[in-house]
This record gives sequence, C-alpha cells and structure tokens, in this order.
Amino acid sequence: MSDVRVHNFTISLDGFATGAGQAPDAPFGHAGERLHEWMFATRFWHQMRGGRGGSVGADNAFAAMHGPGIGAEIMGAGKFGPPGWQDDPGYKGAWGANPPFHTPVFVLTHRPRPSVEMEGGTTFHFLDASPAEALSQARAAAGGRDVRLGGGPSVIRDFLTEGLVDHMHVVQVPILLGRGVRLWDGLESLEEAYQIEAVSTPSGVTHLTFTAKNR
Amino acid sequence: MSDVRVHNFTISLDGFATGAGQAPDAPFGHAGERLHEWMFATRFWHQMRGGRGGSVGADNAFAAMHGPGIGAEIMGAGKFGPPGWQDDPGYKGAWGANPPFHTPVFVLTHRPRPSVEMEGGTTFHFLDASPAEALSQARAAAGGRDVRLGGGPSVIRDFLTEGLVDHMHVVQVPILLGRGVRLWDGLESLEEAYQIEAVSTPSGVTHLTFTAKNR
Ligand SMILES: NC(=O)c1ccc[n+]([C@@H]2O[C@H](COP(=O)([O-])OP(=O)(O)OC[C@H]3O[C@@H](n4cnc5c(N)ncnc54)[C@H](OP(=O)(O)O)[C@@H]3O)[C@@H](O)[C@H]2O)c1
Ligand SMILES: NC(=O)c1ccc[n+]([C@@H]2O[C@H](COP(=O)([O-])OP(=O)(O)OC[C@H]3O[C@@H](n4cnc5c(N)ncnc54)[C@H](OP(=O)(O)O)[C@@H]3O)[C@@H](O)[C@H]2O)c1
Repeated sequence: MSDVRVHNFTISLDGFATGAGQAPDAPFGHAGERLHEWMFATRFWHQMRGGRGGSVGADNAFAAMHGPGIGAEIMGAGKFGPPGWQDDPGYKGAWGANPPFHTPVFVLTHRPRPSVEMEGGTTFHFLDASPAEALSQARAAAGGRDVRLGGGPSVIRDFLTEGLVDHMHVVQVPILLGRGVRLWDGLESLEEAYQIEAVSTPSGVTHLTFTAKNR
Repeated sequence: MSDVRVHNFTISLDGFATGAGQAPDAPFGHAGERLHEWMFATRFWHQMRGGRGGSVGADNAFAAMHGPGIGAEIMGAGKFGPPGWQDDPGYKGAWGANPPFHTPVFVLTHRPRPSVEMEGGTTFHFLDASPAEALSQARAAAGGRDVRLGGGPSVIRDFLTEGLVDHMHVVQVPILLGRGVRLWDGLESLEEAYQIEAVSTPSGVTHLTFTAKNR
C-alpha cells in the first residue's frame, strides 16, 4: 500500500503553521514569508521556480523529498485559497495557471464544485468527504504512488487523529507568531505512534521527522 | 551588571513546561518524569545527586551550565510546591532538607511568609513583588553573581515580557503533552530581542538558546 506523506510543513516555535489574518495577498496572514525563508534559500525551491542556484545542504535534502514518488495531493480549503474563495466560481487556487503539483489534487471543502484541469498535469478535485474517504479516492488516482498531505494544519491534525499519516516532516522556525492556527492542538501522546528524529541545521531551523511505527 | 539566566527549562513539542494535574507526588502532573529524562541521563544530574556516571555529551554540557556563576534564584509559587502549599505553615519546598540551590532563593507568591534557612546554603525568601522588584532584591543577595530564573513557565513568561532575561536555555523534548501550562503563550515576536540557536542531540532533544541582543 502506498504511503501518506507530509513534507516541508513549517511551524513557528510556538507551533503556528500560519499567522492570523489570511487574505488573498497574505496566504500566511501576519506571518508573511517568515515561515518559509529556510525553503526559499534551497536549490529545491529555485529549481521549482525554473531558476538555478540555492543551497544544497541539509535543508535542501529535506525539501527535495517533496516531489519524488507522489501521485496525488490532498489539501484543505484553507490552503487552496483565502477565506471566501468558495464565493468566486472562477477561482482556481493560489498558484496561477501551472500549479506546482503536477498530479491530481483533492481539495477538502464543505462546498464542492466541478473539477478544474490546470496546465502541467494538475487537476483540482473538490471533495466533501471524511479523511478516510478522501484518502481512498486520492490513492486510486495516485496509481500506486504515494499521497502527499499538503496541509493546512487543520487537515493534517484530522489525518493524524485518524492514524492515516505514515511519514511527516515538520520544520520548526525560531520565530514566535503568537496567533494563527496551531498544528499540535489535541494531539496528546502522538509520539507513541511515531519514531521521531530531530535535526537542527545551520540556517537555524529544526527538522522533525515522524515515521509511523506501524509501517 | 549581573545576568539573568534560565537553564534546563524543558518543554514538550507542543510547548508545555508541565502537564495538567500537579500534586505533591506529581510535580509535573500527567507529564510524570518524561520531560526530564534527557537530564537524568547526564553526568551533571548524577553528580548533583552525589553519584557517579552519566553521559558527558552535548546534553551534559548544556545541563552543567546551570550552577556556575549563580548567586541567587527566583522561582514562582508553582515551582516551590503543589497547589495549596501556602495553607501548610511548615511546608519547606519540594527538595528535602538540603535543596540543590545552595544560594538565596526568592519565591514569588501572593501569600508571603517568613524566610526559611535550609541546609547547604539555601535560604528561601518569600516575595509579593513585581518581577523588577524581585530581581533587584535577588541581585543584591547574589553579591555580583548572576541570578537564575528557575521557572515555572508563568514566571518565565512574565520576566520575558518585561525584557528582564539575558540568557535562556530551553530544551524541547519530542513528546506531545496536550495539556498543562505552556511556555510560549503571549510572546509574539520574542525572536526580535534574541539571537536564537538550535542544536538537536542524539538523545532526541533540541536545545534552544536565547541570547539577548541588547547585552
Ligand atoms: N506552514 C505550512 O507549511 C503550511 C502548509 C500548507 C498550508 N499552510 C497555511 O495553512 C492555512 C490553512 O490552514 P487551515 O488549518 O486554516 O485550513 P486547512 O487545513 O487548509 O483547511 C481546513 C478547511 O478545509 C475544509 N475541510 C477540512 N476537512 C474537511 C472534510 N473532511 N470535509 C469537507 N471539508 C473539509 C473545511 O473548509 P470549508 O468548511 O470552508 O469548506 C475546513 O475549514 C493557510 O494560511 C495556508 O497558507 C501552511
Ligand atoms: N519544565 C521545566 O523545566 C520546569 C521548571 C520549573 C518548574 N516547572 C513546573 O512548572 C510548574 C509551575 O509553573 P506555573 O507556571 O504553574 O507556576 P510558577 O511560574 O512556578 O508560579 C506562578 C505563581 O507564582 C506566584 N507569582 C508569580 N508572580 C508573582 C508576583 N509578581 N507576585 C506575587 N506572586 C507571584 C503566583 O502564585 P500565588 O498567587 O499562588 O502566590 C503565581 O500563580 C510546576 O509543575 C513545576 O514542576 C517546570
């Protein structure tokens, strides 16, 4: 069976995966770009944007795990767009005409709409379904490859609670956001189900990896 | 001027410095001893208990910074004893006849009592005072040496908010407690005042050090 994987999911020291006040020009609210500066510096990121350069150290090694072996992504309505996107029938996500997924993407929302085919192999499907149901559709679409769980924090929490996540890579950045949406709420004793490693890198972030013990 | 230092202050991945349900036989509530296992394994801890052995790696190097150069400690009522200790006029703290401080210790409480001299150089003084007032008394008692801020989380948060902490060493353990008292609440943008380093060690914990930029 294919794995469910979380990659490059970034939180502040106080556990927020996004700041408060998400808006079209501020997908991470008052956090701005501060959560992901570690990633913007990597070769992985430069290449994804079609450029050259970028660091090739430990941050890049972790970041580059994002793509290989993935056949579909599941994400929440809060990652797909800013509050209220469901009221715009022409909205096609926050990533322009050629989104960086290049696979089927299943967007969990209580207000589903018809699928949208984008350039570059990404198709957005909209589902009002339980985590397990969404996963079985994503698995079918992934054709034997793994399913990436793309966030946001609410959706990752729901999948963790249901025991559906096999690998998780969380990056902790040394900033305190104070407000926003927390990743860790309601996950008491999660460590019992995972082998956890921590690695701090010279950029100042700490990579935490969770490997499910039951795999 | 002497420094205000925090050492070996340990939190879970979700930021709790103590579990819920503190009691005489459970000073960390439902966390039990899980927060401090990293420290119990060190030579520092073995020596403090009068024994031999223990690891001499990175965890020990950090742990051993706790004592040298300290002339006084400030702690909160919640570290001094379990809920309700103020109702017992004979209560002398959670550490037995010879507490591991060996300096004056200033206990912040809204119900102060006369000072108590213990064996080994520790004297407990009880203060109902602001952080800045408590610090000026502790500094006077420390005779030019540094003041350790011993916790718990509420008191550390109060001193951070007042900008009174020069060095802070926080140890993050890969467990999720889910409930208890959080360290990071209400400290948005704390990173602006500190240079922060992170080091993960083979035991699985991550040492975070905060060095005040204005020192
Ligand atoms: N730090 C990172 O690495 C990272 C990664 C990804 C995203 N983010 C950020 O995270 C934020 C979004 O996170 P979030 O926690 O607010 O939201 P989210 O997890 O993206 O989405 C939650 C929403 O998805 C819908 N949903 C979830 N489960 C569902 C189900 N089973 N059935 C139907 N609908 C379901 C609901 O929306 P409706 O009821 O409105 O339909 C729910 O409110 C954004 O700011 C984004 O930029 C951060
Ligand atoms: N993880 C670690 O490394 C670590 C280290 C130390 C302690 N701890 C744990 O932390 C827990 C205690 O932390 P906590 O946050 O609950 O309590 P705390 O910070 O130890 O103490 C807070 C209490 O101290 C008194 N106080 C604080 N400031 C005061 C002031 N300016 N004037 C007068 N009184 C003041 C108040 O008590 P009253 O109003 O009742 O007098 C207040 O409720 C314990 O479980 C302890 O075992 C953990």
